[in-house]
Amino acid sequence: DDSWSVAGHTFKSRLIVGTGKYKDYAQNAAAVKAAGAEIVTVAVRRVNLTDTSAPMLTDYIDPKEYCFLPNTAGCFNAEEAVRTLRLAREAGGWTLVKLEVLGEARTLYPDMVETLKATEILVKEGFQPMVYCSDDPIMAKRLEDAGAVAIMPLGAPIGSGLGLQNPVMLRLIVEAAKVPVLVDAGVGTASDAAVALELGCDAVLMNTAIAEAKNPVLMAQAMKSAVEAGRMAYLAGRMGKRMYADPSSPLAGLI
Amino acid sequence: DDSWSVAGHTFKSRLIVGTGKYKDYAQNAAAVKAAGAEIVTVAVRRVNLTDTSAPMLTDYIDPKEYCFLPNTAGCFNAEEAVRTLRLAREAGGWTLVKLEVLGEARTLYPDMVETLKATEILVKEGFQPMVYCSDDPIMAKRLEDAGAVAIMPLGAPIGSGLGLQNPVMLRLIVEAAKVPVLVDAGVGTASDAAVALELGCDAVLMNTAIAEAKNPVLMAQAMKSAVEAGRMAYLAGRMGKRMYADPSSPLAGLI
Amino acid sequence: DDSWSVAGHTFKSRLIVGTGKYKDYAQNAAAVKAAGAEIVTVAVRRVNLTDTSAPMLTDYIDPKEYCFLPNTAGCFNAEEAVRTLRLAREAGGWTLVKLEVLGEARTLYPDMVETLKATEILVKEGFQPMVYCSDDPIMAKRLEDAGAVAIMPLGAPIGSGLGLQNPVMLRLIVEAAKVPVLVDAGVGTASDAAVALELGCDAVLMNTAIAEAKNPVLMAQAMKSAVEAGRMAYLAGRMGKRMYADPSSPLAGLI
Amino acid sequence: DDSWSVAGHTFKSRLIVGTGKYKDYAQNAAAVKAAGAEIVTVAVRRVNLTDTSAPMLTDYIDPKEYCFLPNTAGCFNAEEAVRTLRLAREAGGWTLVKLEVLGEARTLYPDMVETLKATEILVKEGFQPMVYCSDDPIMAKRLEDAGAVAIMPLGAPIGSGLGLQNPVMLRLIVEAAKVPVLVDAGVGTASDAAVALELGCDAVLMNTAIAEAKNPVLMAQAMKSAVEAGRMAYLAGRMGKRMYADPSSPLAGLI
Repeated sequence: DDSWSVAGHTFKSRLIVGTGKYKDYAQNAAAVKAAGAEIVTVAVRRVNLTDTSAPMLTDYIDPKEYCFLPNTAGCFNAEEAVRTLRLAREAGGWTLVKLEVLGEARTLYPDMVETLKATEILVKEGFQPMVYCSDDPIMAKRLEDAGAVAIMPLGAPIGSGLGLQNPVMLRLIVEAAKVPVLVDAGVGTASDAAVALELGCDAVLMNTAIAEAKNPVLMAQAMKSAVEAGRMAYLAGRMGKRMYADPSSPLAGLI
Repeated sequence: DDSWSVAGHTFKSRLIVGTGKYKDYAQNAAAVKAAGAEIVTVAVRRVNLTDTSAPMLTDYIDPKEYCFLPNTAGCFNAEEAVRTLRLAREAGGWTLVKLEVLGEARTLYPDMVETLKATEILVKEGFQPMVYCSDDPIMAKRLEDAGAVAIMPLGAPIGSGLGLQNPVMLRLIVEAAKVPVLVDAGVGTASDAAVALELGCDAVLMNTAIAEAKNPVLMAQAMKSAVEAGRMAYLAGRMGKRMYADPSSPLAGLI
Repeated sequence: DDSWSVAGHTFKSRLIVGTGKYKDYAQNAAAVKAAGAEIVTVAVRRVNLTDTSAPMLTDYIDPKEYCFLPNTAGCFNAEEAVRTLRLAREAGGWTLVKLEVLGEARTLYPDMVETLKATEILVKEGFQPMVYCSDDPIMAKRLEDAGAVAIMPLGAPIGSGLGLQNPVMLRLIVEAAKVPVLVDAGVGTASDAAVALELGCDAVLMNTAIAEAKNPVLMAQAMKSAVEAGRMAYLAGRMGKRMYADPSSPLAGLI
Repeated sequence: DDSWSVAGHTFKSRLIVGTGKYKDYAQNAAAVKAAGAEIVTVAVRRVNLTDTSAPMLTDYIDPKEYCFLPNTAGCFNAEEAVRTLRLAREAGGWTLVKLEVLGEARTLYPDMVETLKATEILVKEGFQPMVYCSDDPIMAKRLEDAGAVAIMPLGAPIGSGLGLQNPVMLRLIVEAAKVPVLVDAGVGTASDAAVALELGCDAVLMNTAIAEAKNPVLMAQAMKSAVEAGRMAYLAGRMGKRMYADPSSPLAGLI
């Protein structure tokens, strides 16, 4: 009965998966299922949600079974992002959305000025934006104050697979946030996902780490277990670290 | 149907747990169960296996249900270790054993000269020793040549909870070994256990990380999931690492 | 003859030191000298620059000998920061200044919205602001576009001594910047300072790592050598990393 | 006047450099000079010390000016190593020597059984062996007990440039040793060398990091400064690490 809630929706799964870079929709659907995901994020600009003459994502991943989370991948300013989400709302009625406003193609790093601006507009228009952002605790607070329903700092550049580069900052964000914090981007393998939950994050969103594994469906299952493991370890309360075998000598400041 | 074998015994679980530092045998038994362990290691010198007037481990953890792996914790030379395992064999008939010969109380680091000597004697006497050792790939090869049925390098000092300090060496050991390689010692939390399996190790042995968690039974369950996650990630084949968002720029040598 | 320039001023030393947390001005002056610093940063709100009845920093560190860089430590919004620097300009004529607008007392993390606003105002008023900032490459670009004469991302929280937490982001900032990039905050010991220069940063600013060492003057000298070492190593071009002893097997993606 | 001594010889420089992989002896000599080295290690089996018809190392690096430290690179058992050093003693009278007995060509990891055996023989024959070894604190103690005049654990595989992989173990070795401890192998760039000294090691030995830099002579100079920086930082006593900006919250066990 361990669950988390965002904008009034409650979920048991703490793993949100994407719908890009898969061989085909069938593989994507199999990965989503193996991941045990309840939320699936969909790039509104990239995924065919309306042209019935071509293969449609919704034929493979049923929007009645999964919570579809439209995202703004590929948008490089607030206006584009807001327009994209308005289209999504018109098409499917979605108001719980994932906002990402990228700063450049090279790093896919978020543009926080445009992100904050878009958040404010979206909230005003009745959306509940979950927001991809930098690992900046002050900016995270600003997003929260602007009405973001979840803070989604990157662990490393999108698609890099480098693992969580800045646990210190992620922890500071978690400590201060009153809305859920999710690591979005940077996970490369299972242990990375576990680390995110061990730091106290509420969930993890990933795409490339699953889609680009040699066996995406098996990796999805690995990620499911890793997220559950990290969450349980967080709740269980880990042992302290020690420099020596002697339990009475804590490591304070030595390493 | 993913399993591993040591000395002719086949196991599905890749998590071996200990029997020290728990509040009582009942908690220990609950943790073993939550861990999904099939093998339980027991310090012959510390655990009451024969005095029926005191609480006995075997009343809580049934040797018919679990594979008991007697170990030589507390032995500081080959002679002590060999003598201890002879007693274990007389008491319970065990020949699959875990050898550890410690070099000093401060670090609980193995004494590899005595460890190698004890391995040779044990093999000659018909034991199948799984051997706790340093993360030295040449020494690991010597142990294997001497008849060790598994190589068990430390990830960090026993009881330190520091996590795997030397993945480069662990990988070199894994690449060269023809017998199973298990990380023994050093795991502090779930992600550490996942990393061991991601490196290609066959299994992990731990005690303090579970016993000293605030909630040992929940941590045992976390470790079960972490080990499964790490193993699946290893089999699934992780994505490459990249410096940039652009998938065409691999990270080679940059980080 | 290796030097760097900021806003038309050229320096040989790549180590900027602070004037806080020292036992007294004499110790501070000795540390500045040992560091070989040419630039000394001064918290306008904390340092006595005008009350001649009390000990004055300028009696110990001569503004004719060192480039004084007034900073806005303790300012939590753009207005305070701008006002502080206007006072500094009136008092000493300084236009090359260090802007820092903090987001909160807990983390001393910069407030990037206010920082960007203050940068724009300062540039309009003729200042040349070197700007303390997050390790966000897009925000760094915005600061540069707004007229910042140097980008000064944190390596870790101010006063934490944790070392550079996010080399990936620092490298991305360095690669894109057309103005000097300096690591500001986070250095704990000499090797941390060397890493900053090895990443291609132009210089490092530090205060606590020197002032809180047991022997601040010796640590200042250590930092001088470390910065020189890191810079030379960057210019010399380091060897590639390899997984094995065999030079023909590069490490690509393995670690 | 900070110096260190080994087997009665006192040195100011804490950087020992090699004589392999350079373009030619002239470059090697320039690098040795730039490094400020007082000790130069020479692979007896690879360097021409006697054939006057070919270029000779001693024409470029004067054995009267530098302390030549013959080493046994390329030896894979105790007998070869001992024989090699006997030849060296006959040729040049050297008794202060560097012993390395490798376990395999793939990793160039030391064979500690053969290394210990060779140490015992060499000591009996009047040599003063400085011994390349694993980062095993118990084995280090055995070498010291056998008469090794210095303990030289690897930081990472020879020629890998990976940097110090196991600072926990290096620190344990330093704490227990009564003879000098030098990191031998694994340094890739300047900050790695600084770290070795910050951990309390007495000196560092390196070859590839200098010889394979794009500009070896400049890298040698960088290493000189890095070693000095690391040593001074160690003596100066670094600040503690903190999780937050607030100086009153130490980091104990959190990171």
